[in-house]
Amino acid sequence: MSTLTRLDEPQFSPHTLNKFATLMAAGNGYLGLRASHEEAYTDQTRGMYLAGFYHRSSSVETTELVNLPDILQMRIELDGEIFTLISGSILDYQRELDFASGELRRRVVWLAPNGKRYQIECQRFLSAAQHSLVCSRIAITPLDDSANVTISSGIDATQTNSGRQHLDETSVRVFEQRYLQGCYRTLDGSNEVVISSFCAVPAESCSSFYAKNRRLTQHCSGKIGKGEAFSLVKTSWIASSLDADYHAQTCSYVTINKLIQCVEQGYDSLLAESAAVWQSYWQRSRVIVESENSQDQRALDFALYHLFAMTPTHNERCSIAAKGLTGEGYKGHVFWDTEVFLLPFHLMTQPEIARQLLSYRWHNLPGARNKASKNGLQGALFPWESAWSGQEETPEFAAINIRTGLRQKVASALAEHHLVADIAWAVDAYYQATRDDAFMRERGIELLLETARFWISRAVDVNGRLELHDIIGPDEYTEHVDNNAYTNSLAHFNVERAKHYLQQFEIKDVYFTRQADDFLERLYVPAASGENLIPQDDTFFRKPTIDLTHYKQQQGTQAILLDYSRAEVNEMQILKQADVVMLTYMLPGKFTAEQMQANLDYYEPRTIHDSSLSKAIHGVIAARCGRPEQAYAFWQQACLIDLGDEPHSCDDGIHAAATGAIWLGAVQGFIGLTVEQGELHLNPRLPAQWQSASLPFYWQGARIHLKLTPQQVAISVFGKNPVTLHLGEKQVSVLGSQTYLLADFFAPVTGSGTTKGAKP
Amino acid sequence: MSTLTRLDEPQFSPHTLNKFATLMAAGNGYLGLRASHEEAYTDQTRGMYLAGFYHRSSSVETTELVNLPDILQMRIELDGEIFTLISGSILDYQRELDFASGELRRRVVWLAPNGKRYQIECQRFLSAAQHSLVCSRIAITPLDDSANVTISSGIDATQTNSGRQHLDETSVRVFEQRYLQGCYRTLDGSNEVVISSFCAVPAESCSSFYAKNRRLTQHCSGKIGKGEAFSLVKTSWIASSLDADYHAQTCSYVTINKLIQCVEQGYDSLLAESAAVWQSYWQRSRVIVESENSQDQRALDFALYHLFAMTPTHNERCSIAAKGLTGEGYKGHVFWDTEVFLLPFHLMTQPEIARQLLSYRWHNLPGARNKASKNGLQGALFPWESAWSGQEETPEFAAINIRTGLRQKVASALAEHHLVADIAWAVDAYYQATRDDAFMRERGIELLLETARFWISRAVDVNGRLELHDIIGPDEYTEHVDNNAYTNSLAHFNVERAKHYLQQFEIKDVYFTRQADDFLERLYVPAASGENLIPQDDTFFRKPTIDLTHYKQQQGTQAILLDYSRAEVNEMQILKQADVVMLTYMLPGKFTAEQMQANLDYYEPRTIHDSSLSKAIHGVIAARCGRPEQAYAFWQQACLIDLGDEPHSCDDGIHAAATGAIWLGAVQGFIGLTVEQGELHLNPRLPAQWQSASLPFYWQGARIHLKLTPQQVAISVFGKNPVTLHLGEKQVSVLGSQTYLLADFFAPVTGSGTTKGAKP
Repeated sequence: MSTLTRLDEPQFSPHTLNKFATLMAAGNGYLGLRASHEEAYTDQTRGMYLAGFYHRSSSVETTELVNLPDILQMRIELDGEIFTLISGSILDYQRELDFASGELRRRVVWLAPNGKRYQIECQRFLSAAQHSLVCSRIAITPLDDSANVTISSGIDATQTNSGRQHLDETSVRVFEQRYLQGCYRTLDGSNEVVISSFCAVPAESCSSFYAKNRRLTQHCSGKIGKGEAFSLVKTSWIASSLDADYHAQTCSYVTINKLIQCVEQGYDSLLAESAAVWQSYWQRSRVIVESENSQDQRALDFALYHLFAMTPTHNERCSIAAKGLTGEGYKGHVFWDTEVFLLPFHLMTQPEIARQLLSYRWHNLPGARNKASKNGLQGALFPWESAWSGQEETPEFAAINIRTGLRQKVASALAEHHLVADIAWAVDAYYQATRDDAFMRERGIELLLETARFWISRAVDVNGRLELHDIIGPDEYTEHVDNNAYTNSLAHFNVERAKHYLQQFEIKDVYFTRQADDFLERLYVPAASGENLIPQDDTFFRKPTIDLTHYKQQQGTQAILLDYSRAEVNEMQILKQADVVMLTYMLPGKFTAEQMQANLDYYEPRTIHDSSLSKAIHGVIAARCGRPEQAYAFWQQACLIDLGDEPHSCDDGIHAAATGAIWLGAVQGFIGLTVEQGELHLNPRLPAQWQSASLPFYWQGARIHLKLTPQQVAISVFGKNPVTLHLGEKQVSVLGSQTYLLADFFAPVTGSGTTKGAKP
Repeated sequence: MSTLTRLDEPQFSPHTLNKFATLMAAGNGYLGLRASHEEAYTDQTRGMYLAGFYHRSSSVETTELVNLPDILQMRIELDGEIFTLISGSILDYQRELDFASGELRRRVVWLAPNGKRYQIECQRFLSAAQHSLVCSRIAITPLDDSANVTISSGIDATQTNSGRQHLDETSVRVFEQRYLQGCYRTLDGSNEVVISSFCAVPAESCSSFYAKNRRLTQHCSGKIGKGEAFSLVKTSWIASSLDADYHAQTCSYVTINKLIQCVEQGYDSLLAESAAVWQSYWQRSRVIVESENSQDQRALDFALYHLFAMTPTHNERCSIAAKGLTGEGYKGHVFWDTEVFLLPFHLMTQPEIARQLLSYRWHNLPGARNKASKNGLQGALFPWESAWSGQEETPEFAAINIRTGLRQKVASALAEHHLVADIAWAVDAYYQATRDDAFMRERGIELLLETARFWISRAVDVNGRLELHDIIGPDEYTEHVDNNAYTNSLAHFNVERAKHYLQQFEIKDVYFTRQADDFLERLYVPAASGENLIPQDDTFFRKPTIDLTHYKQQQGTQAILLDYSRAEVNEMQILKQADVVMLTYMLPGKFTAEQMQANLDYYEPRTIHDSSLSKAIHGVIAARCGRPEQAYAFWQQACLIDLGDEPHSCDDGIHAAATGAIWLGAVQGFIGLTVEQGELHLNPRLPAQWQSASLPFYWQGARIHLKLTPQQVAISVFGKNPVTLHLGEKQVSVLGSQTYLLADFFAPVTGSGTTKGAKP
């Protein structure tokens, strides 16, 4: 395996504190920790979040992921100077997130206003091996003289979510004059979190402890000689009432004991233990590319780092939030992003995680049934935004219009129903990749049936034809339309799959089958016209177009809404993301290369790509159309959604789905690995810049490794049975290692615009 | 009137941000506004408080004065550099609070990290004329080049009380693309606050408005030539549901209209209007001294500035908090400090405020009766800590002991009952100074009777003698004792005064009179022994003493409690403040000079002065004992409680009572003006450092002006009738202006230790 890349912060800037706090955030699926600096900055949003730990601070607010008490902040005084990189001068600055181990490291040489130089080295990691464990180490070396060092750190519960407080401080303790512990309870009394910390300080230093105003603080001070290091190692253990082994009566002692064990083990050993987990993750998942552009590999490593960090694997009642565990954007809610953009990665690298993500939905069927029923419908209407309870968490009203004082109802929760079919789509994908009969019998078929029932009840009869009215597709710039192509197609797919699995698993449900047959026969599915164009909805083609150049240049900022109202945008051919392009991505076997191409060429110029979900999918379709250059351009832009230069693009968290989409673009786009009708297809279209691409993946119980070059593909299958793979129009069956010349399977790519490599 | 002093901040320091934010805080009794800088600093606690606007954020918290959304913070970017005095260099720094007008001014020349110099001038005031009005002005002048200036400011509701959130944001608006307004409601729904702001910006600048995450913000940017000023004037109007004229349905429009009127009037005119109110205040109240030490006048001006700022005069349901409106210490609660340390100043300068402070207690009689009744007692037991409701607001348990995890019951609320008699004492003082019969008939006598009834029920019969058991006096280092001299004496005084006024106002209450007679006859009042010593309580003299030198050097820090437990301190002759000294202060006619002296000399060495209430009172007694040197030393130390060098002594607010004590020390101590048995006494004991002292005051409807020198006293009485004044043993009767040679009334002071000037 080639060396993992690192993410570097090129320099310290007060303008990009929150961008890098997000990009370099730590996570292990259980906890997320923003990469805020030890020292405080006024513009810096600190954050620590526990997966599933939601609360609603008051009746006028929305349920949100709770920003927990802070454990990483340190107030550092060096010879009376408060350490901050805003004062004095920075003589040297290095900060890097090591993807191989998850360790964040910083080294600063600071010239303080007093004219003295100090070296400050900080390290920290969130354990991938023990998910409650956070370790940090700071070493301060005076370079010019001996120094008086004071460090104040502890557990700071003055943290809020932008002023919204969720926690009562129920107890603060210092055990054995060493171990700090704060216990907190959500204001509604439903959940608790217990945070324990220990600071190992130099023996000759002097410590005192204070608790005041929601802060439990250890002040530690000492004198250190020139060139010697004053080091503080802080070990923290975070537990919550969401943990399976949590008991309110014993958690205080149990967690102190865990902390003591970790403290005894020590930073380096704990880091090694965590790095070993990361290593096995990378071995299981890493996509390696040899590219002219080194940032390609870094983008993939970045994406996969965050795909690990964001994904809760410890509790089926948790799923992946739109910003992972890196920030408070979208309140930590779960969207369709999880099933469509994130689940495919897990399915191919660690399928049990995909199963767990689907189980999250299965556990939440009561909420989905409730929402359907409230709307006079059958089956399961999953909430547009989901948290712990499975109820709809989308705020009823959008933010107030500050000019009019009016609040608009949030339309997505009312009409953006495609996520129901997206969940069914993911269940089908899961079964195809795993043949996990047990899951289907216990949970999968129920999900398919309940989602199918929703669509059957949702359709309206228009002169004998079934239609879906008043819909919002993924393109949220076109609201309340009839027969959105994406939604109708996916709904059809949903019901068809439900019927299919009922038959396959020999489950008798005559009434459903009869209803499904009727629905499948009569549902109107917008189809390609003579020019291969699929209408996005009933009225789309009749709407006028405008020149979008200006807005495409500012994509991602929704600048169009500064010039036009939502209602005006709705009446033009203006797309946030292109639904028909997305549709051809979702159901690859259903469309010809000509259809994919025609729709890409029609819709893309009308698409601003204001959604972070847009670019990478366009890249996959461009690749499938045999346009690797165009695909590569889209993919590179998609890689910059978080990693680009815009200083505030990800202040409130990473675009979780976009990290999944980076992987999708490489794997489904360039490597060309797709599943169609339960079978594995490989149609490589490496961009000219890539000399090779390789990835490990799982398929129906077999571990497979692929390595592609422009000339050949080397396939290794580790399993008992051979794996069948479609290479273009031909099939191969592989067990052990095989290398194939691509020229034997594919006509040479002759340039942009050719359809070679795309399926008829 | 000599020129008013100013309070200067000698230099910018990140270590004293909160000290000066307190010292230079603005207030008009309705609103308080900490003197935080426009630009944010991580260690800086911003704060805006409305008198009486309390809320309890959750059931485990205490009711507290709500820290309101911030209106003063500005994020300033100069050519892309974020303005903060922590970065770059400060080439010039001046900051001053002008006591004459209440205006806070700052002028900085800042060398930014980009190498360019900018002058930043800030001014602000809280109107003394329109109590809802806050004005601020900032002018930025680039000194080296033209500059791009961006200022972001608005209404920021992410503010909390150390993480405790009290307010829901119910609406944010921008009217006419100009006027910002945020409406907030306490979480319990009981109160609302409406904040409206307007920023006047240069015509050629460009503004935009955003509302997100509880922040309503105006971004304003423009380019300005070298040497020209980019100025922004922000006018804000704060209204709340506590206002008499508040109507929830119309407040939004009404307050915008008020704001518009103020904006039209303009900063300078509004400042002049406010300064006129300050001017009349200073004329009515200012104590002027000619002293060798210029800080004496500044301390007096500082004290009187804050006595104005802290005192709500608009609403009888509000009283003065222990930290005024300058910070969150003591949660904004009202203590006995108000009646004993603050009311006397108001009584002599604006007696209607004294009446209002007593009315606050009268309105809260139901809560006091309720507390008495809950304790199985009669009458009114006022809460140790009082807020809006009049219920006991003292937290049931003190802060958790972080070492043991135990919480101790707060003893003051259980046993520190002297405040009941202190309130009665203040009613008597009020009547003596005003002869306000109407107040007595309506409210005063009820207060006296209900407090007297409390004491009668509180006493226990011990072999025929009535005693008060399980008491804490003002000296909180001696808890749960029997027959505390201060408390027994004041309780006796309380009942005696109740009986007296019943008779005077010819109110028949046979049962009470009989009970009172019995109580007065049988209550044990600790009296002076042969050595003139009064025992602080039944057991005090039996306790051991220790050397307190070490703790006296750290007075105010409660350092003793780091070495001894409260229980251990309780068993030694260790005083936080000296109760018997305080007693001789409270009832000046009841003790001989020898008694005062003996008790001062006995108790003071045993007193750490850990209470901010201690020093100034010791100074008054030293003066009354004819020891002006000792008195002056005490008084000077008392003046430094907030103004001293200790960088964090008043981070969470000024010591309100200590400001009153500065006035008391000068007026009752050095000028020697006291009231005994309803008559005015003047026994001057100017310190050697003072060449003169003068003060205006009211006495029984007459406006009086006194000017003292070491040789003479000039008295002017503006009224219809002559005023009788005891000068030493003699009486004079003055109408118009008279000057008396002191030598005609007092024997010359022969040095420290003499009893001249003290009453027999």
